[in-house]
Parts: sequence; C-alpha cells; structure tokens
Amino acid sequence: MAGVRGRFITFEGGEGAGKSTQVKRLAARLEAQGLEVVTTREPGGSPGAETIRDIVLKGAADRWSPVTETLLMYAARRDHIERVIEPALTRGAWVVCDRFADSTRAYQGAAGGTDPGLISALETHILQGVRPDLTLVFDLSPEVGLERAHARAGAEMRFESKGMAFHQRLRDGFRAIAAAEPERCAVIDAEAPMDAVEAAVWTAVSDRLVVHG
Amino acid sequence: MAGVRGRFITFEGGEGAGKSTQVKRLAARLEAQGLEVVTTREPGGSPGAETIRDIVLKGAADRWSPVTETLLMYAARRDHIERVIEPALTRGAWVVCDRFADSTRAYQGAAGGTDPGLISALETHILQGVRPDLTLVFDLSPEVGLERAHARAGAEMRFESKGMAFHQRLRDGFRAIAAAEPERCAVIDAEAPMDAVEAAVWTAVSDRLVVHG
Repeated sequence: MAGVRGRFITFEGGEGAGKSTQVKRLAARLEAQGLEVVTTREPGGSPGAETIRDIVLKGAADRWSPVTETLLMYAARRDHIERVIEPALTRGAWVVCDRFADSTRAYQGAAGGTDPGLISALETHILQGVRPDLTLVFDLSPEVGLERAHARAGAEMRFESKGMAFHQRLRDGFRAIAAAEPERCAVIDAEAPMDAVEAAVWTAVSDRLVVHG
Repeated sequence: MAGVRGRFITFEGGEGAGKSTQVKRLAARLEAQGLEVVTTREPGGSPGAETIRDIVLKGAADRWSPVTETLLMYAARRDHIERVIEPALTRGAWVVCDRFADSTRAYQGAAGGTDPGLISALETHILQGVRPDLTLVFDLSPEVGLERAHARAGAEMRFESKGMAFHQRLRDGFRAIAAAEPERCAVIDAEAPMDAVEAAVWTAVSDRLVVHG
C-alpha cells in the first residue's frame, strides 16, 4: 500500500540457531499474504556492508578488538540502513533481517566486554528511526549451536572460534535483551524441530503484527 | 628514557599538502636528537587498519556516505591506537603520524556534513587518552593541492574526486580546528618551498616540545 511504511522484523541469537532457514520460511509466509518482503542479513546486506563483513568475520579470533569490531559492525549497519533497509521500509516493504543491532549488544557488548555507553551512543547516532517492530530471539545452548555451526563450517569462523565462555555470555546477553524489552522481543526455542520453530515464529509474528498486504 | 611517555605529533591538511615528505624529514631530525621515532599514517598504520584504508580510499566518490566513512575511519583509528600508537608512546617513543582525528573532523565533518555530535562521541569513547601533543596543520589552496595530488595519482582517489566545493570546506575545516585550539595546533604554509616548510615544522616542534633523547 502506497504511503504505509513497512514493518521491520529481526532475527537474533547465537551461532547455529537456524535463523537463516527461518528467515526464508517467514518471508514465504508473508509473501503468501500479498506483502512485498525484503530478506537480508547482517553484517552485510548491501555491497559495501558485505565488503566489511568479509574482513570482520574471517581471520584469527583476535584479529580485531571488540571495540574495533563494534565500529566495523556499525559502519556496515549504516550502509545497510541507508541503501537497503530504509528505502524498503519507505516504499512499504516488510524487511526481515538475520541479525541487527542486538547482535552488537550481545557479541561485542555482553560477550566481548565493549562499554555499553559506546554501543548506546552508536544506536542513538546511527540507527536514527530504524528500530525493529519485532525481534525473534532464537535461544539454544551454546553446545548445540556450536556443534551445528561447525558442521556447516566455512571461512567465516572468527566468532565460532572464541570459546565456550564467550558463547555462554552471548546467550545470556541475548536473553537479557529479550527480558528487558518484552514488547519488542519474542524468545523462540531454537532447539525444537524446524517445523515447530517455524510455527512459533509465525505465532509471534501474527500475534504481534497485523499481517496482510 | 624508561618510564617517560613519548610525544605524539600529527600532521593534518588537505590533499597534496606534502605531509608525507615532511613527516620523514621531521622524523630524521628527531632521531638525530637520540629519540626513538615511529612514523605512521592514517587511515592505516597497522595491518588491520591498512585493510580498512584499502576499502575507504578506493572506488567511487559516493561508495560510502560521510557517516559510514566516519565509522570506518574510527574503526581503523582504534586498531591503529591499540596496536601501534599506544604501545609506542608507552615505551617512550615519539610517534609522528600523517593524519589523525582532525582529518575526520575536517573530511567527514566540515566538508562531508556528518553531525559533529557523532564525531565528538567517537572522540570521547574511542581516543581515550591518546591526543596529539602537537598538530601541524598544513594549509594550502585546494587548487594547488589537487594539482599536486593528481600528478601523483594512484588508486586512492576517492576524496580527490569530490570536487572543489568539498575541498574548500575541507580547508576551512582545518583552519577552524587550528583557530579553536591554538595551543595544540601550528599552521604551516604548505605552498612554501619544501625546505622552508621543513624549517617551519622544526621551529614549531622545537618551540613547543622539549626535544632531546
């Protein structure tokens, strides 16, 4: 519908949570309702941001400090917002994004130890009006998630290589975000079978957002 | 001298100002005084930051927005500080750096239009204690500078390609920084012959800092 701003749905969680599969399934369901849907991901989602993704996700675990990572993630995010997310929302499309600002809070903040004051300042200055209408927080034990992630292993393994204590802080970080913002966030049991996860996602989306084209 | 922190000298200015030549000449003079000197540059100066330099200085003028550039420059700067500048200053070396935080104020801020509030927030959170003891602001007309820059043209031409109005705002931006912080900044006439520029740099350094090993 011309003139109506689209909705912005983000998927968050640790490694091996199965987000990318569920992003596709949700997009198909929304498209079946007659909506224009843009599926995208972070870090990346625009040509410039994908270039940044390439340097931030590859290489040794200590290639970048958590503070430098935070700045790289926000550089990628800004490009993605300017060139993909905001234009899509403006024309009325629904944007379904695999990771967004909560991943910086959890990975670089809760798990990496970056000053929350820096992350808040970046959210204020860089996100501007672009905030998720709904965030699906995929929750699973780091042991299960890392086992899945290693099974699909490629070159982008910097975060997977950071060790179990990091991944436990990461899970706690995502849970804390969901607990602090229950109106925006729905926690999804990501250890459930894929069809059950899909159903839980759809319940959250259709309960919380008005879904029709 | 063990236990004495080194000094941090930055060179700033627009394109074609002749900074890199003068960085080398100043380093040679300081070394002749028995000092350990580290010469470096931004964006870049550490392996990670040089990777970021490569994506920020190449490509089309509009490849990155000024805000995204600001974040990339600060990501590179943070890595450079953590891995090169701070360790050198801590061990007592003098660091002579071709561009630093003032370039973000001038290029992305004064010339690019980035919100000064974002730049200030990044200075606060990212620079922490690392501030120049002396900044040499190389001043010259954009016409002269761009003619020199085009004569040495390589792949890193994103900023050179931004047009004369951008470069005039850039010059004004650097001059405004020098005017606002006269105790830290010395303006150098960069249209003068190279030996005269070298002499002016040395006068500023030896007048303002105690130069002996």
